[in-house]
Amino acid sequence: MLSEFRFLENLRQKYSLTKTGDDCAVLPKDRRTDLVVTTDLLVEDIDFRLDWSKPEFIGHKALAVSLSDIAAMGAKPVWSMVSIGVPEKIWKTDFVDEFYKGYMNLAQNFDVELIGGDISKTPEKIVIDSIAAGEVKKKKAVLRAGAKAGDLICVTGRLGGAAIGLRLLENGEKFEKSDHKNLLLRQLAPNPQAEIGRILGEKNLATAMIDLSDGLSSDLAHLCRVSQTGAKIFAEKIPTESKILSFKFEIDNFSLALSGGEDFELLFTVSPKKNFQLEKELENRQISRIGEITANVEIIELVIDNETRILAPEGFRHF
Amino acid sequence: MLSEFRFLENLRQKYSLTKTGDDCAVLPKDRRTDLVVTTDLLVEDIDFRLDWSKPEFIGHKALAVSLSDIAAMGAKPVWSMVSIGVPEKIWKTDFVDEFYKGYMNLAQNFDVELIGGDISKTPEKIVIDSIAAGEVKKKKAVLRAGAKAGDLICVTGRLGGAAIGLRLLENGEKFEKSDHKNLLLRQLAPNPQAEIGRILGEKNLATAMIDLSDGLSSDLAHLCRVSQTGAKIFAEKIPTESKILSFKFEIDNFSLALSGGEDFELLFTVSPKKNFQLEKELENRQISRIGEITANVEIIELVIDNETRILAPEGFRHF
Repeated sequence: MLSEFRFLENLRQKYSLTKTGDDCAVLPKDRRTDLVVTTDLLVEDIDFRLDWSKPEFIGHKALAVSLSDIAAMGAKPVWSMVSIGVPEKIWKTDFVDEFYKGYMNLAQNFDVELIGGDISKTPEKIVIDSIAAGEVKKKKAVLRAGAKAGDLICVTGRLGGAAIGLRLLENGEKFEKSDHKNLLLRQLAPNPQAEIGRILGEKNLATAMIDLSDGLSSDLAHLCRVSQTGAKIFAEKIPTESKILSFKFEIDNFSLALSGGEDFELLFTVSPKKNFQLEKELENRQISRIGEITANVEIIELVIDNETRILAPEGFRHF
Repeated sequence: MLSEFRFLENLRQKYSLTKTGDDCAVLPKDRRTDLVVTTDLLVEDIDFRLDWSKPEFIGHKALAVSLSDIAAMGAKPVWSMVSIGVPEKIWKTDFVDEFYKGYMNLAQNFDVELIGGDISKTPEKIVIDSIAAGEVKKKKAVLRAGAKAGDLICVTGRLGGAAIGLRLLENGEKFEKSDHKNLLLRQLAPNPQAEIGRILGEKNLATAMIDLSDGLSSDLAHLCRVSQTGAKIFAEKIPTESKILSFKFEIDNFSLALSGGEDFELLFTVSPKKNFQLEKELENRQISRIGEITANVEIIELVIDNETRILAPEGFRHF
């Protein structure tokens, strides 16, 4: 049985698909602008659960995951579509109304115009397909493939929060009564780094970029594979969530920062010459430099307490 | 409980959505060109059944329904994306491979480039979201809203075939053993009228257009409502499928031509001044003039044997 990555790789080769494989496809728009487009499927009980989330959060998340892909191209989001399939019993509730409330609230925050969609019936489970498009200066879309040995590796925000939130939900934590709403929201209604992504693209700061949807170890491996580079990252520089001590069960924040998915932060590489400019353009944002790109193709080294070990990709995959 | 049409109408008003409501959204591309975009959700056991169809047909149909929407704007299809969610047991078969075979075969026929997509796991049923985009000369997209009293009402092909195919399948007809494969294919692997749609748009022939996905009575009502017109159509001019006499059960070909969905033929209106040019440009295609647009807003008249009755929309809807 093929992994989904291998399957998609085969598909690309079999049908000579040249525009797939990055966070978005890049298409020519006009003389000055390229269009980037992405689609993300969200399925009930795989990507969200009704007893953990709220319809409004699900609407927010549906758009957020696509805006994160747009951000990862260094583009500015412009328009979106959303298809939603629900069983009859859900149609009769206010689910769809509340879903659109969460969706449209995020859309309006980022000035994204909802231009279309589809509504369908399903036998049992809710399914959502989220499509979004953004614009970027011609030939300036930031691909996964541009990293060079010596580039700094950076991430936005803190990593592992979405996975910690998931652990809490799996252990019965309820959003309404939780003291850790911020961590649950990292999982239930993540915020896409649309602003930072756009600035990185506009100012030509990133040589390569990917959004952290599968987990740092996986996504860094994707980036290195297509860039034909390796990477060395330092454990102490990885921005983990603060420890929560009050739980019955232990949460390994560091492991979740490495391999927990769905943070929807950005992982990008920057030429050391632009380090100062990066500081200036994003001075109020949390950006961590966690290591550097190496010439050891597809080898990801993790340095912990001066000891180096090889990091295997351990992030999320469907198949 | 709101119908899906009413729900979408409310959504448009609540959030001031101006680009939704036609077969595709129309977006500015460059100085000469507009982009049209559409998305269609297909759900197992609602839109297709594994025991009736073949994975290859399902792939074909997924793209076909979206290309039909592009055609209905008078546009030329250019690129597409497809998201597919399957349960683990289906992933292990050759379903996804065969699905893409059918999808790519149709894509290559119409020179459509697959630029992206998503693969996900589902708990039980297969879901597919099909996204396609086309190009049309600036401001020349054919909307549903352009029909004027006096315009001729035309349809492509024959109507009701997809619904007859569905009746046969519901009555146990198997594709492999069937003597009526062509009718079953109308349902299982419909052909979008991409060529005719593009010509109608390019030559500026149609004043309004919609694809016949819900059924003639419904889709004509949609077109008349947004054009703020009525229509008078003539029963004897509606191109039905030929009667099949050898069945155990009776099929009312005329009713199915009126209200059976999924024919994916085009319904369009033409100024009588352009009737001759229409004949010339599409001389080898089956185009039937079935009536004319009237000023009786939202009244659809059906003339049978010189008697006129009011036609209520009776096509397909999910909710």
